[in-house]
Amino acid sequence: MNLLVVGTVAYDSVRTPFGKKDKALGGSATYFSMAASFFTDVALLAVVGEDFEEEDRRLLEERDIDLRGMTAVPGGRTFRWDGEYGYDLNDAKTLKTDLNVLAEFDPVVPEALKDVPYLFLANIDPKAQAKVLDQVRHPKVVAADTMNYWITHCRKDLQDLLPRVHILLINEAEIRQLTAEFNLLRAAQKILTWGPKMIIIKRGEYGVLKITGDAVFAAPAYPLEAVFDPTGAGDTFAGGFMGHLAATGSLEPEALRQAIVMGSVMASFDVEDFSLGRLAQLERAEIDKRYHAFRRLTEFSDL
Amino acid sequence: MNLLVVGTVAYDSVRTPFGKKDKALGGSATYFSMAASFFTDVALLAVVGEDFEEEDRRLLEERDIDLRGMTAVPGGRTFRWDGEYGYDLNDAKTLKTDLNVLAEFDPVVPEALKDVPYLFLANIDPKAQAKVLDQVRHPKVVAADTMNYWITHCRKDLQDLLPRVHILLINEAEIRQLTAEFNLLRAAQKILTWGPKMIIIKRGEYGVLKITGDAVFAAPAYPLEAVFDPTGAGDTFAGGFMGHLAATGSLEPEALRQAIVMGSVMASFDVEDFSLGRLAQLERAEIDKRYHAFRRLTEFSDL
Repeated sequence: MNLLVVGTVAYDSVRTPFGKKDKALGGSATYFSMAASFFTDVALLAVVGEDFEEEDRRLLEERDIDLRGMTAVPGGRTFRWDGEYGYDLNDAKTLKTDLNVLAEFDPVVPEALKDVPYLFLANIDPKAQAKVLDQVRHPKVVAADTMNYWITHCRKDLQDLLPRVHILLINEAEIRQLTAEFNLLRAAQKILTWGPKMIIIKRGEYGVLKITGDAVFAAPAYPLEAVFDPTGAGDTFAGGFMGHLAATGSLEPEALRQAIVMGSVMASFDVEDFSLGRLAQLERAEIDKRYHAFRRLTEFSDL
Repeated sequence: MNLLVVGTVAYDSVRTPFGKKDKALGGSATYFSMAASFFTDVALLAVVGEDFEEEDRRLLEERDIDLRGMTAVPGGRTFRWDGEYGYDLNDAKTLKTDLNVLAEFDPVVPEALKDVPYLFLANIDPKAQAKVLDQVRHPKVVAADTMNYWITHCRKDLQDLLPRVHILLINEAEIRQLTAEFNLLRAAQKILTWGPKMIIIKRGEYGVLKITGDAVFAAPAYPLEAVFDPTGAGDTFAGGFMGHLAATGSLEPEALRQAIVMGSVMASFDVEDFSLGRLAQLERAEIDKRYHAFRRLTEFSDL
């Protein structure tokens, strides 16, 4: 196995100005693994309830996602998130969160997955993220996401985790909260002194910034005429990014830049439909085509 | 003369979290012409009061900006703008506007400037923009800026102007207001049916989108560790953009993309100091160096 993600599998109820969908398959590990599956073999570590639908399991299996780490709790109910977006699709408003089986999630990495080289710790309790990291023997690349809740309530755990993480994915508001620095470059430089070698700042419809000790790379979001549902865009980005990295095996600057763009490409597909609708229908040729369109979107010649 | 800008020359009082400056030279035509002067010969059409300082005139003359169109009204007072920025430097809060001589501004293009091929109509009353356009005989490229005030109060005048404009520069909030479309691509497509051939959407620290009938180009803003004062960034962008276009004489897609980046480069210098502080000290070699850094900021290789 090349890539492992620990995170959530959820049922989402999402309302946007363009429609609504109830009990839609979602969750960070779901979006991540769907996206990554186009590039490499990927396994998912998560917990679901007895209510987890067979057809949803099949959707993941059809993409060859390894589900040996997906535990179904007898009598349990799958994590639920109800959210809403206005016209400004950058900001999700959480209406309700039912942790259900997630409240007792104690991630155990199956023996067969403990030698995975690429590891993504999606946005869950940093104590659970650390626990997964403890079980993976020699990860080559560890990337992690987080959110405002953990920064506010579990800062110490998060600070303890960061020296063990190579790549931190974080959005603009979160990096400002975490570092108490408004300027994004200075905020990133501060985190680089805490251990991570690379910070990826997610800016929603404005794209991403990748910041390392010696360089900054900026990628826009792919402009679309219709964005239906931004749910999962960040995790889909992460799945494309890590999937491409794991597939190439390279950590050279050029491979990292390509991976950033591949993440952006995958996120641009995700938002074109509700839930996993677009990713489930996606063909590899479409991905390559949009990657090339991304080049044309951003390229300009020397003077 | 290759390039003419009509707009304001102002005295600004600006407060940011990093300091304050009173009676600082500002105004759209000032920032624009300073930026453009690094690339081509540029003339300025504007009105000032009797209080306009000799040293400020000298600053413009030292950059070889043609001031034959800058009228000083005897007994008049120069336009004044008092503004404030919080840590989120994207949003200026206007504290006070004193139109002064600008209230009676009736732009008359000097005979010697009527054959100018490149014309920039900075953000002033669309009736005054149209009046300047009436006087320029055969402009090759006409670009215009506007703002929410004119969209709200002079929409008819602005709509009448647009079919005569090749390139519209506008920010995100303004294009949404003007078109009643939230999606930026659809908003731009709508304006393209009104006459302009190209829309440049300014997104502050997130960069710009250039939209034509068949292509989109996205450029980020150059990330800086210290932004002191964003005043004039949009006009400085426009000056770099139009200055580069006027210098190359080309309207090919590649030249337009280069010009967008050159505008972004100039804007990135503008914000590094209050007022025109940085632009007044700038050397051409620094511009070229940052253009190359911009390429490295955004480039990524094919798969």
